[in-house]
Amino acid sequence: MVESPQRNLDAYPHTLQLPTRWNDNDSFGHMNNAMHYQLFDTVVNLLLRDLGSLQEANGASRFLVVETGCRYFAEMAYPDIVNVGLVVRNLGRSSVRYDLALFRNTEREAAAVGFLVHVNTSEGRAIAMDEDLRNRLEKYLRKTASL
Amino acid sequence: MVESPQRNLDAYPHTLQLPTRWNDNDSFGHMNNAMHYQLFDTVVNLLLRDLGSLQEANGASRFLVVETGCRYFAEMAYPDIVNVGLVVRNLGRSSVRYDLALFRNTEREAAAVGFLVHVNTSEGRAIAMDEDLRNRLEKYLRKTASL
Amino acid sequence: MVESPQRNLDAYPHTLQLPTRWNDNDSFGHMNNAMHYQLFDTVVNLLLRDLGSLQEANGASRFLVVETGCRYFAEMAYPDIVNVGLVVRNLGRSSVRYDLALFRNTEREAAAVGFLVHVNTSEGRAIAMDEDLRNRLEKYLRKTASL
Amino acid sequence: MVESPQRNLDAYPHTLQLPTRWNDNDSFGHMNNAMHYQLFDTVVNLLLRDLGSLQEANGASRFLVVETGCRYFAEMAYPDIVNVGLVVRNLGRSSVRYDLALFRNTEREAAAVGFLVHVNTSEGRAIAMDEDLRNRLEKYLRKTASL
Repeated sequence: MVESPQRNLDAYPHTLQLPTRWNDNDSFGHMNNAMHYQLFDTVVNLLLRDLGSLQEANGASRFLVVETGCRYFAEMAYPDIVNVGLVVRNLGRSSVRYDLALFRNTEREAAAVGFLVHVNTSEGRAIAMDEDLRNRLEKYLRKTASL
Repeated sequence: MVESPQRNLDAYPHTLQLPTRWNDNDSFGHMNNAMHYQLFDTVVNLLLRDLGSLQEANGASRFLVVETGCRYFAEMAYPDIVNVGLVVRNLGRSSVRYDLALFRNTEREAAAVGFLVHVNTSEGRAIAMDEDLRNRLEKYLRKTASL
Repeated sequence: MVESPQRNLDAYPHTLQLPTRWNDNDSFGHMNNAMHYQLFDTVVNLLLRDLGSLQEANGASRFLVVETGCRYFAEMAYPDIVNVGLVVRNLGRSSVRYDLALFRNTEREAAAVGFLVHVNTSEGRAIAMDEDLRNRLEKYLRKTASL
Repeated sequence: MVESPQRNLDAYPHTLQLPTRWNDNDSFGHMNNAMHYQLFDTVVNLLLRDLGSLQEANGASRFLVVETGCRYFAEMAYPDIVNVGLVVRNLGRSSVRYDLALFRNTEREAAAVGFLVHVNTSEGRAIAMDEDLRNRLEKYLRKTASL
């Protein structure tokens, strides 16, 4: 089978290793499908913090999640270390879509790929995100050539 | 705005009420986006049990999750009671796609809609699901007229 | 073996049924030990809400957890319904200790017993809890005779 | 206030850094009290694996948790890195008590201290743990002098 670029580690300009936890596993002895989203969330918010936009309950604006999704290709399980890859797929005035991939330990083909769409909001309404943040996120945009 | 049938409680032939938990809420004081998938999972597996197919680690076959997704329209928060709606969208020989919706307390328009695709497997390979189970799941199939 | 009153359902003046979730189970196919604390938390905060003291991030004061503990006597597992028992064990000026017990489905002897100590705080310092709330909590105090 | 040795990083011969996750935080914007137990669990089971005793659902014997507890001294919050300290407090024929402490980022005084008691079981009954494992665990026993 031809490997799509989205499952290849090279497609992700930003990566972060996160350890699994004992109770990430469910009765099937593998990482539960909902846990993937905890890892997505964690990596996206860490990136935002590193780019100067720590998400806080009482901040002037905050990113709300409006859509998420995940495809599961292979099982992972505690005590795996998950290497999370991130690339910005779309970047709008107020919204950003992150493509994410989970790599088991040292594997280079993703065990799962997903996405998360953030909309910047203030009092429940979409507003333009900070211009500096937007410029910094642009550096993580997927290169057209890799599609 | 025209309400799509998928967000209307009437579109879901099976419903189950699940309480939120204190730590379903994250720093934003609302139910975290990953929690929606815990509720999806819980309701799907309860339905399978009720239809005579309790998912067990050492069962002869087991349903693996191959894809999930969720759109978030409105925030929910502990201590909300979530009314989870379920309808079977596609039913194959070995796979089934459930459409799911989360309704806040007594609301009739979904705060979130999503889906979960199960593939029946034995030793990692897709196999036809039990014929009896398949017949029982058929009763939860979305009526064409409601599309 | 003599049953201690703390494991008997009769020792708990307040009870609430909470369903387990699919991924409360860990690799052992039973409810993970950390999940018990999610149920404790959920029931304590629901009681506080019912007594007029909804815990909110931006409230004038908030109860912080300073100690918790749990003893595990028997395994529980999804899809069990857990009946959570609560009794106020100690009630101070600013603090309250809840004793909690988890009963599997319709069982009357607890599968687990635990406790949670709350201290009412404002800006990180202990302060006297609201007098009305304290009076209402008093009604849930363990009767001396049942010790 | 005199610092007790149990809150000092030096009291723990084994340490492991674990990152917090976005939804470890609850509505109060701090790490929820139940999450501490997820970290305890994770570190204890990783140690057991490193000592040659990976806990598996279908193993010949398995360690069940019979008691846990935690005292919370200071708040932690995502995106903290938690440094988890572990020391073996008691080591019996079939049981072991681990004392655990959570240190916020580079702090040397614990934000929380707790414990977890494991009993080795086979088909629900306590049995002597493997002699090799017991010998290896002995190296993590708390030195009397540090009490």
